[in-house]
Amino acid sequence: MDGPFILKIAILGGTGKEGPGLALRWANAGYGIIIGSRQEEKAQRVAKEINEKLSIGSIQGMENREAAQNANICVLTVVYTAHETILQDLKDVLQGKILVDTTARVDFRNPEPPSEPSAARTAQEILGPGVKVVAAFQNVPAHALRQNINDPLEMDVLVFSDDEESADEVIKLAEGGSMRAFYAGGLDRAIVAEGLSALLIDMNKRFESTTGGIRITGIKK
Amino acid sequence: MDGPFILKIAILGGTGKEGPGLALRWANAGYGIIIGSRQEEKAQRVAKEINEKLSIGSIQGMENREAAQNANICVLTVVYTAHETILQDLKDVLQGKILVDTTARVDFRNPEPPSEPSAARTAQEILGPGVKVVAAFQNVPAHALRQNINDPLEMDVLVFSDDEESADEVIKLAEGGSMRAFYAGGLDRAIVAEGLSALLIDMNKRFESTTGGIRITGIKK
Repeated sequence: MDGPFILKIAILGGTGKEGPGLALRWANAGYGIIIGSRQEEKAQRVAKEINEKLSIGSIQGMENREAAQNANICVLTVVYTAHETILQDLKDVLQGKILVDTTARVDFRNPEPPSEPSAARTAQEILGPGVKVVAAFQNVPAHALRQNINDPLEMDVLVFSDDEESADEVIKLAEGGSMRAFYAGGLDRAIVAEGLSALLIDMNKRFESTTGGIRITGIKK
Repeated sequence: MDGPFILKIAILGGTGKEGPGLALRWANAGYGIIIGSRQEEKAQRVAKEINEKLSIGSIQGMENREAAQNANICVLTVVYTAHETILQDLKDVLQGKILVDTTARVDFRNPEPPSEPSAARTAQEILGPGVKVVAAFQNVPAHALRQNINDPLEMDVLVFSDDEESADEVIKLAEGGSMRAFYAGGLDRAIVAEGLSALLIDMNKRFESTTGGIRITGIKK
């Protein structure tokens, strides 16, 4: 049997803005979702909120470690200052899984493109070769994810991984949430998506928006 | 008197692919264009080709130095390996002008995001404070510029400069060529546009296209 229903996705640090946005779209598409948090109670509260929003009951809330253990794919949506710590903490339970790293190391108040190596390269180095790290969703604004969740997202997802097969799984996952996604190369290149996040945060401020993103044009997929 | 007709644009190293593409759109919109090249004869040949394509006669061809001397705005479209040399050579005649740097230091055969500082930051350092450097058009593919030149371009232009007034002039220039353009910050941030060029070249190869670009979405301009 194949399909979204056998896939469990844990959203680690999933009680912020980006995590619930992704959870909303994926749960709406029928994927099994676990919201992870440092505090189990907080995870369960956010899971309940999303369940109520969608009139379902399937989304679970767990402490990050338990969430990771119960999922096939883990999506990391912590604030960038917590990035390395959570990876060190969960290194053992992430082995054998795909880790989707959404991290852009950009300070909202002073958005500057960060320096190499990419956050995802650092993640791969911390986790070792037993985890397939895929960088994605850095340029997908939480506000856009929460709007019109049945409609295709107006912006595209750039997907980076040293392992193209894992990247393909994440491209399918993005498509499951009505997002168009493009493989854009190995993990080092994810630095471009992080830099783009800085530019988009700045443009959002300049043009009084919260949903700035990019779309790839001139390429037929 | 105000308007495009009093503005002279020199396209330095304008006999490649990107230069004639930009020249075509701007000449079509009524701007005065000078094609610059290391060889005057080559510049004149390319100028003649674009004139014939548009059934006009106003585009001139000159040696790079002369072209720069006769223009208000100079647009640099040399291959990236010639970037620093031409800036050193023309430093004196560029003083007091705007230099639009389109350079992305990306090798077509092995497209990787280049390292900091951005090409445009290097240009500003070579030329000194008497020249207003603006980075733009790195992600606008030559093939797209040459297609349907009366129609708005499908992709957007990111514009970087330490001097926002000069950036605004280049945004107007882009709009004159039916391109939508966004100010995206200071020259250091142009590294993101260079990195994007690497990603887009790779995507073009993967999806058998020549016109990959980006569009900013979710922001009303």
